[in-house]
Amino acid sequence: CLNLPLTPSLGVTEPRISCSGELELKTTLRELVVYLIFLITLCLVTFGMVSTNMYYLNEVMSRLFLERSSAEDHGIDFESIRNMADFWKFAEGPLLDGLSWDKWYGNTTSALQENTSHIYYENLLLGVAQVRQLKVRNNTCSIYPYFQNFTKDCYSTYHYIAEDKSDFGLKNGSEWKYTSARSLSPWYWGAAGFYSSGGFMFTLPKSKEESREKLEFLRQNGWLTRGTRVVFIDFSTYNANVNLFCIIRLVVEFPATGGAITSSRIYSVKLLRYISFYDYFLASCEIAFCLFIVTFIIQEMIEIKKLKMAYFRTVWNWLDLLLVAVSILAIGFNIYRTMAVSLLMEKLLSAENIYPDFYFLAFWQILYDNMIAVSVFFAFMKIFKYVSFNKTMTQLSSTLSRCAGNICGFAVMFFIIFFAYAQLGYLVFGPQVEDFSTFLNCMYAIF
Amino acid sequence: CLNLPLTPSLGVTEPRISCSGELELKTTLRELVVYLIFLITLCLVTFGMVSTNMYYLNEVMSRLFLERSSAEDHGIDFESIRNMADFWKFAEGPLLDGLSWDKWYGNTTSALQENTSHIYYENLLLGVAQVRQLKVRNNTCSIYPYFQNFTKDCYSTYHYIAEDKSDFGLKNGSEWKYTSARSLSPWYWGAAGFYSSGGFMFTLPKSKEESREKLEFLRQNGWLTRGTRVVFIDFSTYNANVNLFCIIRLVVEFPATGGAITSSRIYSVKLLRYISFYDYFLASCEIAFCLFIVTFIIQEMIEIKKLKMAYFRTVWNWLDLLLVAVSILAIGFNIYRTMAVSLLMEKLLSAENIYPDFYFLAFWQILYDNMIAVSVFFAFMKIFKYVSFNKTMTQLSSTLSRCAGNICGFAVMFFIIFFAYAQLGYLVFGPQVEDFSTFLNCMYAIF
Amino acid sequence: CLNLPLTPSLGVTEPRISCSGELELKTTLRELVVYLIFLITLCLVTFGMVSTNMYYLNEVMSRLFLERSSAEDHGIDFESIRNMADFWKFAEGPLLDGLSWDKWYGNTTSALQENTSHIYYENLLLGVAQVRQLKVRNNTCSIYPYFQNFTKDCYSTYHYIAEDKSDFGLKNGSEWKYTSARSLSPWYWGAAGFYSSGGFMFTLPKSKEESREKLEFLRQNGWLTRGTRVVFIDFSTYNANVNLFCIIRLVVEFPATGGAITSSRIYSVKLLRYISFYDYFLASCEIAFCLFIVTFIIQEMIEIKKLKMAYFRTVWNWLDLLLVAVSILAIGFNIYRTMAVSLLMEKLLSAENIYPDFYFLAFWQILYDNMIAVSVFFAFMKIFKYVSFNKTMTQLSSTLSRCAGNICGFAVMFFIIFFAYAQLGYLVFGPQVEDFSTFLNCMYAIF
Amino acid sequence: CLNLPLTPSLGVTEPRISCSGELELKTTLRELVVYLIFLITLCLVTFGMVSTNMYYLNEVMSRLFLERSSAEDHGIDFESIRNMADFWKFAEGPLLDGLSWDKWYGNTTSALQENTSHIYYENLLLGVAQVRQLKVRNNTCSIYPYFQNFTKDCYSTYHYIAEDKSDFGLKNGSEWKYTSARSLSPWYWGAAGFYSSGGFMFTLPKSKEESREKLEFLRQNGWLTRGTRVVFIDFSTYNANVNLFCIIRLVVEFPATGGAITSSRIYSVKLLRYISFYDYFLASCEIAFCLFIVTFIIQEMIEIKKLKMAYFRTVWNWLDLLLVAVSILAIGFNIYRTMAVSLLMEKLLSAENIYPDFYFLAFWQILYDNMIAVSVFFAFMKIFKYVSFNKTMTQLSSTLSRCAGNICGFAVMFFIIFFAYAQLGYLVFGPQVEDFSTFLNCMYAIF
Repeated sequence: CLNLPLTPSLGVTEPRISCSGELELKTTLRELVVYLIFLITLCLVTFGMVSTNMYYLNEVMSRLFLERSSAEDHGIDFESIRNMADFWKFAEGPLLDGLSWDKWYGNTTSALQENTSHIYYENLLLGVAQVRQLKVRNNTCSIYPYFQNFTKDCYSTYHYIAEDKSDFGLKNGSEWKYTSARSLSPWYWGAAGFYSSGGFMFTLPKSKEESREKLEFLRQNGWLTRGTRVVFIDFSTYNANVNLFCIIRLVVEFPATGGAITSSRIYSVKLLRYISFYDYFLASCEIAFCLFIVTFIIQEMIEIKKLKMAYFRTVWNWLDLLLVAVSILAIGFNIYRTMAVSLLMEKLLSAENIYPDFYFLAFWQILYDNMIAVSVFFAFMKIFKYVSFNKTMTQLSSTLSRCAGNICGFAVMFFIIFFAYAQLGYLVFGPQVEDFSTFLNCMYAIF
Repeated sequence: CLNLPLTPSLGVTEPRISCSGELELKTTLRELVVYLIFLITLCLVTFGMVSTNMYYLNEVMSRLFLERSSAEDHGIDFESIRNMADFWKFAEGPLLDGLSWDKWYGNTTSALQENTSHIYYENLLLGVAQVRQLKVRNNTCSIYPYFQNFTKDCYSTYHYIAEDKSDFGLKNGSEWKYTSARSLSPWYWGAAGFYSSGGFMFTLPKSKEESREKLEFLRQNGWLTRGTRVVFIDFSTYNANVNLFCIIRLVVEFPATGGAITSSRIYSVKLLRYISFYDYFLASCEIAFCLFIVTFIIQEMIEIKKLKMAYFRTVWNWLDLLLVAVSILAIGFNIYRTMAVSLLMEKLLSAENIYPDFYFLAFWQILYDNMIAVSVFFAFMKIFKYVSFNKTMTQLSSTLSRCAGNICGFAVMFFIIFFAYAQLGYLVFGPQVEDFSTFLNCMYAIF
Repeated sequence: CLNLPLTPSLGVTEPRISCSGELELKTTLRELVVYLIFLITLCLVTFGMVSTNMYYLNEVMSRLFLERSSAEDHGIDFESIRNMADFWKFAEGPLLDGLSWDKWYGNTTSALQENTSHIYYENLLLGVAQVRQLKVRNNTCSIYPYFQNFTKDCYSTYHYIAEDKSDFGLKNGSEWKYTSARSLSPWYWGAAGFYSSGGFMFTLPKSKEESREKLEFLRQNGWLTRGTRVVFIDFSTYNANVNLFCIIRLVVEFPATGGAITSSRIYSVKLLRYISFYDYFLASCEIAFCLFIVTFIIQEMIEIKKLKMAYFRTVWNWLDLLLVAVSILAIGFNIYRTMAVSLLMEKLLSAENIYPDFYFLAFWQILYDNMIAVSVFFAFMKIFKYVSFNKTMTQLSSTLSRCAGNICGFAVMFFIIFFAYAQLGYLVFGPQVEDFSTFLNCMYAIF
Repeated sequence: CLNLPLTPSLGVTEPRISCSGELELKTTLRELVVYLIFLITLCLVTFGMVSTNMYYLNEVMSRLFLERSSAEDHGIDFESIRNMADFWKFAEGPLLDGLSWDKWYGNTTSALQENTSHIYYENLLLGVAQVRQLKVRNNTCSIYPYFQNFTKDCYSTYHYIAEDKSDFGLKNGSEWKYTSARSLSPWYWGAAGFYSSGGFMFTLPKSKEESREKLEFLRQNGWLTRGTRVVFIDFSTYNANVNLFCIIRLVVEFPATGGAITSSRIYSVKLLRYISFYDYFLASCEIAFCLFIVTFIIQEMIEIKKLKMAYFRTVWNWLDLLLVAVSILAIGFNIYRTMAVSLLMEKLLSAENIYPDFYFLAFWQILYDNMIAVSVFFAFMKIFKYVSFNKTMTQLSSTLSRCAGNICGFAVMFFIIFFAYAQLGYLVFGPQVEDFSTFLNCMYAIF
């Protein structure tokens, strides 16, 4: 019982039935209570990031831009685009209608600002929308001798190496000249390729009439060519009522097989914080969270010093390190995000007719949210560490540890069979069924 | 065998293999028979509340008001409402068509009463329909400095505190003046809020033409504003053929994100009783049921007096008390319902152009039906108490009681993992997938 | 070993390890072979009754009459009938179009007989189609005093007792006068009632124009009244290519709740036999089958005489008796069917403009087919009797017989809980969800 | 330890704990490594055959020819064909539109070759499309005496024996004269028959206008008769971008029951190889694969010579033989395919207006791909042979081998019950439900 002060405070993994049992139980219980307070703070902070409004904002936006409206039927909607002519019909019809809401539905005078577009009357269109395409060069694939009489040109599937970066068409504007990708912008993983973030781009003017003329001009001058492999339509909105940005990306891929494949990303994110009282409450939770993290870091460092390499042998300690690392990353990203939004907004306020690239910010925000969600999941798992003094609780873990060897052997056998089935599915059903069209889909479908 | 008179008559839970076994078995069998008679009476009373006609009434009503009719195509149906303009189109088109059936389908003279509307020729529209909206005040949320140049107004999501109760528009009728909620009316739990039962309300005149004019007048005078968060359309019908009321509520929410979310409640309830011979048979069952309940109350009181605190240690006794409590509540509600319907009907008979609020009655009736259904479920479970003299029957319960400790330990572990998964689902999929859009939905989906 | 001649030849149920083991095994094997030959004969006979053409005939017929044709759009199809006006639209539009195919699709002269209708050019319409309605009397339910000012009439749900059999309308033809049901015609089990086979009926003339005029005349004279509860449309076709009758019944119920519920029965049956060579092969199988049955009957009678009451204690013997009984019934029905078809056809050949009631024949044929199918299933099960000399084969049955007591106890508990859940589902979800709309549906859904 | 040289190098199935354990382990490990290299080569070769582009090519082609286009609505699409008139509508409308893409979507001058059709601008139509029908003779079935007054003609379901090969109509071209089947062409397994590959055939001219005139001429001259049982539309395209052939067959069956059943086959196959660098890499893998196969053949022959009949008692050896046989077949088919394509292409280059029959090649290619896929699956399974020195790995196989007897007994019982259920399902649900419409479907559905 004398060695009690020496037992590590955060390393209790196995139930020790010692003479100091009762004292130890008290220590563990105190630790459990402290950990639960930390967990509640963490949950408050993370749950403050999402709200049900995000779902509804995504929902109404996808209804407006992706589904066919019964009221004004253009004969086409986004998901029924099948070739380039359909794309122009969509862009000049449903897209422009969805972007331009310049007056209130009745005869009443509009209470909204001049020269701005409020989608559904509540979502301010930030700046203007951007259209961007990526092309591949001619002769990026070789034609078999038999067919050289019939087809002279050959445009391969999209690949960064095959990308066409040379000027084309009228050669006198950004829509005919290649613009390089920004370093931070994420590439887009489409159905038929992994697309870079550069390309031939233009913005749609604020006025609906001007936009339609611009689109018609580009259509007639052949902006979409046989080499075009993908077109992106990007725009962002801000809803002041619920303090949410909605970043929308509509993607039409024109694969080398002909036809068109559509996809879309609609992200509702909370990029601005600290407006309402609830936000300030969250801010105080965040400060408490930072304090907890500092305490944890000190505690872990003391333990590492004391236990040296033995520290890294316990799985709980790895979990502690992971939580600390994720927390530091989270704090860092929060600071960066606040700065980036501020810069973008200032740029937007100075010049109205530019496209503000919130997409890369939304992309990282979503990734960050998912990372945090996984961390909170592991933080929940850590409760097991503290309840392991109970006998029932340890049954599961001890059972698992004893049959680990057999499970490994079984896992090897399982994965051989699993891969065998996956390749069978890919080879046999791959060309016919969407679930088996790539090897990754295949493994997912079989799993 | 001498302590037989002391054994409680309704507290036999464990098989006692005593010298008085045979005598006891007889007692138990007699009790079982009495209990089965009670159960049959109870089933007759509860099954008398519902009928297959309820399902068909709900079905034909939802087809008429929610689905698009192929015959008269207005280009809009209830479920495709996406903004306020669509709402007016629905109200002036399918809604008015559905409410007004003033003549028989052929050229034959109508056998129906003048100045009344019989939906599907069989369902009398009770009084008139009511339309009601709830609004939120301007500036109930704060706009971030960046956006104050673009948007001056800010209407938050609906919350009772943010509700706008001030007059607006023409300020000269109930449609422009706030009416407070009645105390008993239930609030409505919509997708984007929990709505009070007050609001700005108006009724639709009996004549289709007048209704259309009124709706057009309100549309042009801007009855729906940017602050409008929800509109309710309420009406009730009575079908004399099957003696059923049908209470219909169509709800269009206009969330702070823009767009519209539709939902509906269609309740077919039997509010009037004792018309047909079958009803009188049910009435006699109800009297038998009351007698049973009185007997039970006396029995239980005797036992409580005899056993004192020991009485509350057996789970069967708690079940007895629950059944008695629910039964008394049920009898009370029946008396109240009969009186409330009578009052509403008298009011309606004196003045035809009012909206009779059957919705709150239907709401409580449905809640009451569900409560009764759960009680009958427990009453079925009580049979196990009487069949426990059989050895096979007790195996299950004894197995359960022995592993109770381990099950509790497992339950704790299960719920930690369950909550961890639920929060993971909410944070990761919440903004995209409807099943995960609220934390409750999330837990339900994972469960 | 001396009592071998006394062992029953068809009653071997338990493996007897006796000195006469080998001899017995041989007997059993010989019996098995004989039984397998019988089974093959039986399978040939039953499989000769059905063919894949039946499925395709049902499929093309249901497409023609139930689904909306894209070519000629009448704005209505059978399944979207919602009220009486819709019914007339369907009858005067898609129904008449489906029934009348008087010329070949091109300009070529028709090779088909004058004055007949060949649906899809291959299915001869037998006689004419019949339309039949059932009504209920006025005042078959009582109106609550409150509502007697609003509605004078009350037509209850359909019940045989409430049926209206008095003349109505013009009172001068079978469409206005009640015709009683034929004794053999099956009643129709609809969604909202169990309908008798009598009613007010009329036939549609062969000419499309005359049919349309007749339907219009009936519509304008109010043939469908508020008391109408169901309308049946019946007709039959014969396909000479595949020698199949197709009997079609379209049902529109007008429940007391208002609105309409549609259902249909399309039966393809082989009522005529012995045309092709394959049919003659089947006929020889049928003769073989009859001989087998005669042998079996004699065998069983001998055994009954020998064993007396002990015979009825073995479950295999009951199976034998069942098979014999079903076989005799089958032979009898075959003779009756042949005679009935012959009578109907002769009647039809003498007068073309009558409706030949093949529906009752098809109904019994389908019932008979199902009965035979179940019998063949049991005949398959009987193989187990002969393979029970193998040890492995008896494991299953001996396991089952030992735990029979516990299974019974469990079954009682299971059914109490099952019924408790079923009533819960019926009371709570009954009025809203179709799967729970009747107690039978409920039990099925929970099962 | 002395008998080590005698142990077969590829026949180790059971873990032998002998004095030579370590040496043997080494041998086995070396064999495992060699086998893994072989497996990787095999995977590279087989995965080189398929690509995600195949799926997209199938997808866009089926969208174009099978689904209704929203842009140009002909009121009919392939899957809604219900009778012969619909077939002509489809052929003259959506089919011709899908086949003819003679100019670029905008006003820009076409960069494509004159007089060729590029579907979706990227898929060269190879030669012309072919339409082919199969008929049955009149009086191939007998009409029952009752009906001989109504119908004179009787055309049975399609069967090779009943096929009508005589000239008909104008009798002056391949469309009116029977052409026999080529020997290698596969028969088509349709819903209502197994169709030969001959028939009455014609090709559609390159020009859209001429095609329409030809189709109209045939329609008016009654090319489709009552005896017509199936029509095939066949054509092939080549996509130079992704080096894939797409072979399309649209099938409309007109069963003897009347009506029409549609089906289709769209095969994307890689018939030409060795164009890109990746192809050359695959070619080197193929050479490595051939070398491996030669080594294997030698190894197996040595073993067979050594072990004689004992060789055939091990299941692993059978697997080896299977792999070797399939590999030889694969190499042979590759050589044949290359030659066949070359011949077809040369024929096509010399005369443009013929129909090149790639269908039979695609059919065999797909069969070959599936065979290879199954072989690779078994090749994966063979890894177990090498990992059987591990104790855990052998548990599964030893468990299986011990209970083989009982499993066999159970299997017999299972199949009796399985067949009993299958026939029950076929007899009872066969005429109504598609899943049970044939006995094979039935067994599949029950399984």
